[in-house]
Amino acid sequence: MTAYRDLVASFTKLHRYQHLSSIVQWDQAAMMPANGNEARSAAMAELAVLLHETLTAPHLAAALEAAMRETSDPVEVASVREMRRQWRSANLLPSSLVEAKSLAGTRCEHAWRTQRQANDWAGFLANWKPVVACVRQEAALLAEATGLSKYDALVDRFEPGMTSAVIEPMFADLKRWLPPLIREVTAAQAKERVVAPVGPFPVAAQRALGVEVMGLLGFDFDGGRLDVSTHPFCGGVPEDVRITTRYRDDDFVQAMMGIVHETGHARYEQRLPRAWVHLPLGQARSMGIHESQSLSFEMQLGRSRPFLALIAPLVKQHLGDQPAFDADNLARIYTRVRTGFIRVDADELTYPMHVILRFEIERAIVEGELEPEDVPAVWDEKMRAYLGLDTRGNYRDGCLQDIHWTDGAFGYFPSYTLGAMYAAQYFAAIRAAVPDLDARIAAGDLAPIFAWLDERIWSQASRWETRELVERATGAPLSPAHFERHLRARYLP
Amino acid sequence: MTAYRDLVASFTKLHRYQHLSSIVQWDQAAMMPANGNEARSAAMAELAVLLHETLTAPHLAAALEAAMRETSDPVEVASVREMRRQWRSANLLPSSLVEAKSLAGTRCEHAWRTQRQANDWAGFLANWKPVVACVRQEAALLAEATGLSKYDALVDRFEPGMTSAVIEPMFADLKRWLPPLIREVTAAQAKERVVAPVGPFPVAAQRALGVEVMGLLGFDFDGGRLDVSTHPFCGGVPEDVRITTRYRDDDFVQAMMGIVHETGHARYEQRLPRAWVHLPLGQARSMGIHESQSLSFEMQLGRSRPFLALIAPLVKQHLGDQPAFDADNLARIYTRVRTGFIRVDADELTYPMHVILRFEIERAIVEGELEPEDVPAVWDEKMRAYLGLDTRGNYRDGCLQDIHWTDGAFGYFPSYTLGAMYAAQYFAAIRAAVPDLDARIAAGDLAPIFAWLDERIWSQASRWETRELVERATGAPLSPAHFERHLRARYLP
Repeated sequence: MTAYRDLVASFTKLHRYQHLSSIVQWDQAAMMPANGNEARSAAMAELAVLLHETLTAPHLAAALEAAMRETSDPVEVASVREMRRQWRSANLLPSSLVEAKSLAGTRCEHAWRTQRQANDWAGFLANWKPVVACVRQEAALLAEATGLSKYDALVDRFEPGMTSAVIEPMFADLKRWLPPLIREVTAAQAKERVVAPVGPFPVAAQRALGVEVMGLLGFDFDGGRLDVSTHPFCGGVPEDVRITTRYRDDDFVQAMMGIVHETGHARYEQRLPRAWVHLPLGQARSMGIHESQSLSFEMQLGRSRPFLALIAPLVKQHLGDQPAFDADNLARIYTRVRTGFIRVDADELTYPMHVILRFEIERAIVEGELEPEDVPAVWDEKMRAYLGLDTRGNYRDGCLQDIHWTDGAFGYFPSYTLGAMYAAQYFAAIRAAVPDLDARIAAGDLAPIFAWLDERIWSQASRWETRELVERATGAPLSPAHFERHLRARYLP
Repeated sequence: MTAYRDLVASFTKLHRYQHLSSIVQWDQAAMMPANGNEARSAAMAELAVLLHETLTAPHLAAALEAAMRETSDPVEVASVREMRRQWRSANLLPSSLVEAKSLAGTRCEHAWRTQRQANDWAGFLANWKPVVACVRQEAALLAEATGLSKYDALVDRFEPGMTSAVIEPMFADLKRWLPPLIREVTAAQAKERVVAPVGPFPVAAQRALGVEVMGLLGFDFDGGRLDVSTHPFCGGVPEDVRITTRYRDDDFVQAMMGIVHETGHARYEQRLPRAWVHLPLGQARSMGIHESQSLSFEMQLGRSRPFLALIAPLVKQHLGDQPAFDADNLARIYTRVRTGFIRVDADELTYPMHVILRFEIERAIVEGELEPEDVPAVWDEKMRAYLGLDTRGNYRDGCLQDIHWTDGAFGYFPSYTLGAMYAAQYFAAIRAAVPDLDARIAAGDLAPIFAWLDERIWSQASRWETRELVERATGAPLSPAHFERHLRARYLP
């Protein structure tokens, strides 16, 4: 047992360094004045070196081997499995490649911020080719070491155990029924009358509304905060979870639902088991499972008719009464479907098509079947097929819109739609267990939802591989059928 | 020159770790929710270990020796001198003593927070004796290594180069003329009519006023922030300076002048030379010199009649017009003298007597001439003699009032009054160079003050030993005569 104790000591130190990293990252996004950036970046780079040194310390390899031999306790076996996963991902790649990718990615991302505005595809392409070259090398090395395909080896960093062989049939299913559903719903909604909210909506009032909604959703303010940043996120540490949003004086709709979304991430973090908080075992299972929490809150609960009926009085109380704030109208606002160019502005129905398009393109790039210079043509072809939109010459609102590819985060996109499908499957299970769920939600009794998520997801952290986690929670492997039923029930009632 | 380059690399790494430490410390005081404290403390303790390891790395001793031999460039000589100072203070004490003192201090300080409220001297004493025992061991080891007296060896950590032989005659001088001056001024002020401001003063309005005053004082908001904490302080890093204050709805007087005070600290940090920012050479000279900046801003400038005339219109603009906000009345408020028990509430005239009392007691404790159990009697005796106050049985407002001794920070107190005397000496020099200074201040032209401080103090960082810094700045060694002239001119005009 000494090997395991040695590992726990090393990973506890790593956990404490990661605490520092999380807090200064949050600060950089939410608090730091502009001129603090250079010193902060240098300090964070130094900390990144320290984190990497901690995870590549020579004694860890032998300690992991020994602990795997020594340990038979199932929780410790899982704990070592998760330690090994983090250790392997830090030790598999030569530091020369990590550095080259980091440099190419930083340069490409930095230039992209202006190139996107300028619709400068040629300028972007020149910086992006070295990034893609690094990603392909990375994928080849990871594939060789793991036995996965190149693309799957990248996916595995965000979604351990998830492969294209699982994703592709599910996405094929979505591609079959989702585009016609989108057309049907947009046609039906064309006849709907939606009353637009009339601003301005003072930021202080929006914040107070957000805090009250977070309270309803069980956010623990003794162990977290709500602040503002350009790109909303959930950060901090499980003991002190920091979520952010972004307010507009003339629109509260996005900021409020953004808070609901981040609160879903936050409750997962706040309820991760404290006994394992210092270990990889105690961390969130995957990016897709994390997104399944935010989408449980935002899509399953937040945009539902009973939840909007529950909070309509709060909206009126904080922002003043007006016809747009009636529950039925709020529900129409929050389920409005419109095809558009931009993924992050997309609604629940069109969002998966944006993701599928990116999944298909990034996989082809990584597997060497598509070259960077051919991306705009394929993007346009798929946008026409999936959403009926013409993106020719419009790189800014086309393949230049996302940050992910600029710094080489290939393999992440599927997590968004996996999360949406997981969330639908959870709520199918919750509805089966709690037949009067909608009435309970409307009455403000959200406890059955939180209890289900807490028992089956939050408290489990990384105890199980993802597939087992989902099967234990819902009784079945992930299936897009629940997502389809949910969408048809909500959008074609 | 390789030894110096090696040192620069090590101290640059240390600087980046200290950046992380400063930001998470600020966060702990200004942002962190209550339940984040345990995890934060563990992360900060881990970082403290790392900082200590970095400063005690075995290669540094030889590199410092070699650099001292190799270097003749005067700036590099000074740079190595300051590196050596930090290295020595980390390497002189055995880690068992550092740990024992930290444990005893943490326990004593934690219990003190409730014991002070409960006026529980006996309870405090039991925890404090081990702290004093550690401090005496520490002082003995430092004295042996430096050749200083025990108490001076502790002072040297906060005020490099300062000794009791310099402090004591100056404090003896103050003890001669200050108590009679206090009596004379309080008698004269008894006849004055002071109009009390009438609240409430909304926090948002107080903050807006504070931000405007910080702007007048040259604070760079692109490289810093203003926030709220229980105990106001100036933190962060030179590139990103974070000051805090504490607002009361029923009183703006303290919060506003607190902001002026912290802005003095902040401008020193913001103007430290960027070329040396990663080196000990680029850090503030000492705690007394730091305090001389905050007191230049608060006492010399902030509480002056022309400055208060300058900001009176801003006070009226943000808090509403009322008779109390006329410049003459504001000047009476901000120069009101009243003897009292509490150091942190003391005015400019009585504050030094609180400091001298503590200096005399803490020196006697460290030198072994006074035992902890005898402190209340000596405290009472000195309070009667210096300020005419009876503190018998009132430990809470007596020797239990300060945090400094609870965790063993002996030797710090003199810095406060050294700072006040330095500030008076700077302003005597500035007035000699700018004869119409008061008229310029009243007209909002503070540039001559900032230029003087910038050229002679801020830009010099730790380039010179303190005594040389002050002599180069003002043409003479520190003398209490300027402080006396300043107080007589302001309080007995």
